[in-house]
Formats: sequence, C-alpha cells, structure tokens
Amino acid sequence: MSLPISHPEPKSLAEQGGRKPVSIPAPEGTAVQTVSIALGERSYPIAIGAGLLAMPGSFAGLPSASSVVVVTNSTVEPLHGAALRAGLAGRYAKVHWVVLPDGEEYKTSATLNLIFDALLSNACDRNTLLFALGGGVVGDMTGFAAACYMRGVPFVQVPTTLLAQVDSSVGGKTGINHPLGKNMIGAFHQPLLVVCDLASLDTLPARELSAGLAEVIKYGPIHDMGFMEWLEAHMDALRARDRDALAHAVRRCCEIKAEVVAQDERESGLRAILNFGHTFGHAMEAGMGYGVWLHGEGVGAGMLMAAELSRRLGLVDAAFCARLRVLVQRAGLPVRAPVLDERDNAGRYLEWMRVDKKSQAGEIRFVLIDGPGKAVVRSAPDALVREVIDACCAPA
Amino acid sequence: MSLPISHPEPKSLAEQGGRKPVSIPAPEGTAVQTVSIALGERSYPIAIGAGLLAMPGSFAGLPSASSVVVVTNSTVEPLHGAALRAGLAGRYAKVHWVVLPDGEEYKTSATLNLIFDALLSNACDRNTLLFALGGGVVGDMTGFAAACYMRGVPFVQVPTTLLAQVDSSVGGKTGINHPLGKNMIGAFHQPLLVVCDLASLDTLPARELSAGLAEVIKYGPIHDMGFMEWLEAHMDALRARDRDALAHAVRRCCEIKAEVVAQDERESGLRAILNFGHTFGHAMEAGMGYGVWLHGEGVGAGMLMAAELSRRLGLVDAAFCARLRVLVQRAGLPVRAPVLDERDNAGRYLEWMRVDKKSQAGEIRFVLIDGPGKAVVRSAPDALVREVIDACCAPA
Repeated sequence: MSLPISHPEPKSLAEQGGRKPVSIPAPEGTAVQTVSIALGERSYPIAIGAGLLAMPGSFAGLPSASSVVVVTNSTVEPLHGAALRAGLAGRYAKVHWVVLPDGEEYKTSATLNLIFDALLSNACDRNTLLFALGGGVVGDMTGFAAACYMRGVPFVQVPTTLLAQVDSSVGGKTGINHPLGKNMIGAFHQPLLVVCDLASLDTLPARELSAGLAEVIKYGPIHDMGFMEWLEAHMDALRARDRDALAHAVRRCCEIKAEVVAQDERESGLRAILNFGHTFGHAMEAGMGYGVWLHGEGVGAGMLMAAELSRRLGLVDAAFCARLRVLVQRAGLPVRAPVLDERDNAGRYLEWMRVDKKSQAGEIRFVLIDGPGKAVVRSAPDALVREVIDACCAPA
Repeated sequence: MSLPISHPEPKSLAEQGGRKPVSIPAPEGTAVQTVSIALGERSYPIAIGAGLLAMPGSFAGLPSASSVVVVTNSTVEPLHGAALRAGLAGRYAKVHWVVLPDGEEYKTSATLNLIFDALLSNACDRNTLLFALGGGVVGDMTGFAAACYMRGVPFVQVPTTLLAQVDSSVGGKTGINHPLGKNMIGAFHQPLLVVCDLASLDTLPARELSAGLAEVIKYGPIHDMGFMEWLEAHMDALRARDRDALAHAVRRCCEIKAEVVAQDERESGLRAILNFGHTFGHAMEAGMGYGVWLHGEGVGAGMLMAAELSRRLGLVDAAFCARLRVLVQRAGLPVRAPVLDERDNAGRYLEWMRVDKKSQAGEIRFVLIDGPGKAVVRSAPDALVREVIDACCAPA
C-alpha cells in the first residue's frame, strides 16, 4: 500500500494567484487518513499514515518553489533525514538543510537567527518553502521563521514526535520562548500541509512518547469523554506503539483540534481550552529552566493541578480527579509537580503564572474542567490556588 | 482650534469582541484631516493636523488597555515625549516608556529584544497597547514587536518624521534588518490608528526633511503626475515647512498609499510599485553600512537610477529623467549614487539587489516608470543594469 507518485506541473504560490488549499492524493486502499482544518483560504489537510515521509506522493500537491529549506535538529536528522530526502527527491532544484541543536532550551531568538542566516545566505526568495522536520520546538521555530521571513513564506509541518503530531503542528501557533516566559514571541501562521508519519514514532524515546500522551489525554476531559474511555482501554497499546492505536489517537486529536481551531483561529475565546494543564505546566518549565522537564511532563502534572483546582471550586468530583490521575500515571507521566522554591513555592508558581498569555491585568486565567468533557476558562482566588499548589507539589 | 476632549467608557479589545475600526472625532472647524485605510476589519484612520500629539481627543477612540507602552528613541523623546504624555494623560493607568538608541543601524533583533524585555518585565498582557513615537525605524520595530508579542497586540503609529508620515507608518509593513538585507524579517500588522502631528516636523533636521521628501516625490512618477506638478510648484514651501503645503503633501501621499494598500495589502502585486527607487536604494544602504546614508537619500538617488533604467528600456524619455532629477535635487537629496566597490561597483550593486524581497529565483525585479505616472515591475538584462550603475554612480 502506497500513495501514488504524481508530479503535477508545479506552480509557485505567486503564479497561482496566492494560497490555495493543498490536496492529498489518498485513493482507496491506502492506509492514509486525512483530517482537514477548515480556515477558508488558509485551509489545509493533515495526512496521517505510516511511511509517509519517504513517499513523494505525500508532497505532490505542494506548490513549486525556487528553493526549499528543511529545518530539523541534530537528533532527528540522522533518524528521519534520509526518508524525507527520498520523499522530496527530484521535486525541487535546491534543498537546503538547517540542523539546529535539540531541546526546548534552544527555542530562542538566537537559534531562530540561525534559520534566517541560512535563508539569507542561500538567497532564498519569497517563493521559498520551509519544511519543519521534528518535534514541537522545530515546528514552532520553523513556523515562526516562515511567518517572519520577508514578511511571510509558506511552510509544511512534518512532525516526528507524538506531541507535535497531536498538537503543536496543527493550528498555526508558532513562536519562541523568552527568558521571562514561554512562547511569548510568535505569530499565527498556518502551514500548507501537515504530514504525520506514524513510522517516525518508532524511534521516539519512551519519555517523549509519554510526554506526547499528555497532550493526547487532555482532549478527553476538555471535550470528549468517549475518547477518554477509549484511552483508558488502549493506553497499554499506545505505549507499546501499536500502529492502529496510534493512528486512531492521532486522528481523533487532530479532529478535535481542527474543530476548535476552525471556530477560533486566533484564540480570542474557545481555543484557550486547548491549554488545559498548560498554565501550571508552563510555570514548571520556566521555573525549573527550559529542558529540565519536557513540555508534556509539565502538562501531565499541570492537568492534575487544574483538575484539583476545578474540584475545589466544585466543578468536578474527587472520582474524576482520581480517574485522570490514574490515566496520567499509566501514560508514564509525573503526577507530582516539582517544588520551584523551597521558601515560597506557591508564590513562585503564581509569579510565573501571572505572565501566562491568558492572564489579564495580572489576573491568572485557568482552563478548568466544568464537569467531565467540558472546559471553562476562568480565574480563581489566589488562596485556593495556593492550596492546590501545596497539595500537588512533591515534598522538598 | 482643537479636537474635542472626550473619554468614552473604555473597553478592551477582547471585551469589544475583537478589533473594531477606531473613529477620530473631527468636527467642523478643526484643522484635522482624515484619510481612511479600507482593509475590512483591519481598517483604520490617519489623522493629520498640527498639535495632535498633545490633544487627548486624538486618542479618544482607542480601546482601553491594562497598560500602555510607548516606544521611542533617545532623539525623539526629549523633543516630543512631553506632548504625547499630555495627550495620553489620565487615559491609561500605566504608561511605560522604552527609549531605544536612534538610527537605522539599531533596527536589529538585539534592539527588538529590548522592547520584548520591557513588555515582559512590566508583565504586559494581551490587551497591552503599544505606541510608536518616532520615525520609520521606531515605527517598523514597534509594529513588529506588536505583531509578535503574545502572537499579536494592537499598536498605534505616531510618526514624527516626514518619511514616516507619508510612507512607513501607513500600510502595516513592519520589520527589522538582517546583516544580509534590509527589512528581511518582519510581518504585516496594521495599526489601530495613525496620528500625524505636523508640528513634530518643526524640529526635524533639514537632512531628514529632505529624506522624507524622497518618499513624497515617488508618488508622482508612479501614480499621479498632477501631484508631481504640484510638488514642482511647492518644493520651496515644503522645504520651508509651510504648514499648508505639508498638510497637503502628507494627505495626498496617504491617499495614494491607502488606495494602493487597500487593493493589495500583502504585496502580491500592485503594492510593489511603492518601492520605486528602493531596489537601488537598499543596495546603497546595505552596501555602505546602515546609517551612513538615510533611507530617503538612497531612495532619492535610487529613483534616478530606476528612471534611467526605464529610459534605456524605452519606457520614458530623457526629458522625464531630467525633470525628476531637478525635483530630487531641489528636495536637497543626492543625485549621484555612491560607489560601493572600487573594483567591481556594478557587481556589488547587483549582488545586494539580488537579495531584495522582490527578487525571484535570483532575478532582480525593478519598479520602473512605464510612461510618466505609471509604474511597472519587471526584470532587466544585467548588462543594461550595469550601464545604469556606471552612469549614475559618483566618480571614485
């Protein structure tokens, strides 16, 4: 089973009169699933299947480009570079590669400048097409570079981690960290196409698979308790990297995210629910220093803190919190949050959370569970938040 | 004559359900002129008049904000800071000021980070409103910071140079330079409002007034020969800073720019004509090092090179080139381009021009005059471009 190899007469974006939706050839009998993100002229497909990187058909619908730049990192390039080279072979005259250092601690303006340096020193023009081959950090930085280079060039997401496939590669959020806060500098810039190759998950370290499962789990409590039940039944299969289970999880997460993003592309309301667990999680990441915990680990422990805060506000019961805790634990994620400050731990958490992008006039806005399967964004009294932090943090 | 001072119940952008056009109160009898930029929900007004900075009415239509950040530079702040402080007095609870070093050579990612540092260390949220008080460099950097901070916050342009009032503050182009090219990193991000205070031009050094006149002159050859005739009749008045002449020039330039930008916001076609003189000019700026010549000086000499190239392609006659040359000279601008390289000057120009954003697959796209009053974007043979460079550059 493979995608058909077709090379339509390529046209540049400008020649086509601007951006047009990319179509994925997916004839009967292939193992490719497609989810569409409906955003008018910024609509695009997500292709999900095993072995897609190496198949030229995966990229057949893309516009032509005078040059192509693949941005990846030093861990991913040796694992998946050859496959993408095969997938792009013969299609573009010039393919430049930019290999960044690996890790959240490199999601900085200094690393971003390495991408700009490469684009300019290779005389890349406005029709240049960028590919992000890697996890969330590579995707966020490549997307932001594409948003800013010459005020915007097109890009393609090729996520190779579970976290990126189910969350960060979809929806157009791009950006970098600032020493004072995560993802503080960025842009909304939608990709032309997302290609999720399930085979790339084979080489993912177990710790990163677990981190990705945190973003998978979040879709249950905020939107779909049926999916949460499915996860409870298939968590072992997912951790064993069963292809069918992974395909279902990736597809269902993308469907939910597509639905939310189509309603609220620029996060003026609804979209914020996708940040369930992230307000506490970002504080952990920034407070410990980027790269100590993986993003998904912060989200895992953060979801339990947000659920506990929901419980103390009377929105969910203890049974729901316990059930979520079991699932997070079975995913191989931490269930106790780290102590950020021996003297005033809760104060330090509050300080970091106040610079969260959802904060308004210094008031922290939490994504809470308003009954299983439904999320709400609201504030909470500091005293109550302190109790939750004290209850959920690991003993010093 | 003054604007009425009114303070409508302020609402944040989020409370208002997103961005709404700002209206400028301009009752009969005031000296305020308004030009509208029609871009659907991103539409905004440009207010033009003397003394607008210090009048609270100039800012009465803006949304509320938990905090406001004014970005300016060390030259402009002592001259116009007090006026804007008066205009904003009592309107916002917190007004932070960021004073950058002055000059094109500071239009870099390092300086941009100073704005982000200030925003984050003051815990500015998504409802923060930025003001750009200064010339083109301050406006471009502040606009880009606003485009990227938390993936986009609103901003107001308060241009204090002629160049910024007639060109750079209008139309939403924002960005920074890269060592390998001008404005290579940026975004399209429209302001909520542009306030052009003609009184701020009183303190502008003569050299900068001339630089601004280059951008004024360009609108004639590309779009409106009637305006070029008006300029020929009023050039002395403009250089003498006659308020009525300046008001007419600023309004007419904004009208033409508004018309062009409304048809092509993101420069997929028509808008490129506004870069008349800029392809050669950018090469001069980058080739000499940013800050040696002012941007407008490069545009002044660059327009003459583009006109000469148009002539050698048979698009305009020698009389037109001579007429433009006289006008550029009367504006106090250089009419000879600098020598960038003693050994291969034309080669060095071509090298810089190939990284221009209009270039496609290494082919330089020039904005040329296709008969007086009409612009065209096209390529030209390298040999012919070399002849033009040799003919127009100052002897070594």
